[in-house]
Amino acid sequence: MTAQERSSMRDWLAVALEQARIGLAEGGVPIGAALVDADGTILGRGRNRRVQDDDPTGHGETAAFRDAGRKRSYAGTTMVTTLSPCWYCSGLVRQFGIGRLVVGEARNFSGGHEWLAEHGVEVTVLDDPECVAVMQEFIATHPHLWNEDIGRA
Amino acid sequence: MTAQERSSMRDWLAVALEQARIGLAEGGVPIGAALVDADGTILGRGRNRRVQDDDPTGHGETAAFRDAGRKRSYAGTTMVTTLSPCWYCSGLVRQFGIGRLVVGEARNFSGGHEWLAEHGVEVTVLDDPECVAVMQEFIATHPHLWNEDIGRA
Repeated sequence: MTAQERSSMRDWLAVALEQARIGLAEGGVPIGAALVDADGTILGRGRNRRVQDDDPTGHGETAAFRDAGRKRSYAGTTMVTTLSPCWYCSGLVRQFGIGRLVVGEARNFSGGHEWLAEHGVEVTVLDDPECVAVMQEFIATHPHLWNEDIGRA
Repeated sequence: MTAQERSSMRDWLAVALEQARIGLAEGGVPIGAALVDADGTILGRGRNRRVQDDDPTGHGETAAFRDAGRKRSYAGTTMVTTLSPCWYCSGLVRQFGIGRLVVGEARNFSGGHEWLAEHGVEVTVLDDPECVAVMQEFIATHPHLWNEDIGRA
């Protein structure tokens, strides 16, 4: 990866992290995501909306994907997310042929990013300290909500 | 499986198939689903809403799951769907610990139901001829829409 590519990924992650912070301010689970086109255009952005919409399907990645809207192909796109995607969101990436995945961090939760790499998705884990800090603080202060969000009874 | 269990599954599949037929009448992709509690109560039902809501995240299983709403645990529930779930919907079943999956048919499309079985989900494929016929007709008459729905460019 070139320095330019890594710099672009950090810019996209900033978009996703901004979404996570908006979600946190709304009282929600602070996970944000963005879907980015091959030329760097942000096609969609979104955040976990479990609390805000009282909707268990509202994950960050699904929100960003919905915001991007219907397309014939997602092959050249990149899903950027503040946290390693859960199986639900990993399944979305695989099913719709999203070519790349940029993960803010996988310390607080490790979902399906390695499975996606095995299935041909180009995966980069940035291990971003800000993403780690936001999620760590949230899990410590809202353990029940976090467990609900990932189906951990 | 007892005859009573199979009979219950066929009743639940009828709920999912009704959703698929409503979707077809609306001009949508005819895939329906229901989430059923351990005692047979229908917790949620829904259908693919790609066309109706112009929303690429609106699959049958996600719609039924959303309709069921937020729960602490889905362990005793069964996801019933007219068609083998795509990776996105299979990921949902795995992430939220839905214990059972009943599939109407896997002839027109085979998604992640075998993967789910490998990961501890109790899977039954009913191979229902009505489910096969509805989907076969739809794919033949709307190939572009179907390919879009499963991310096949």
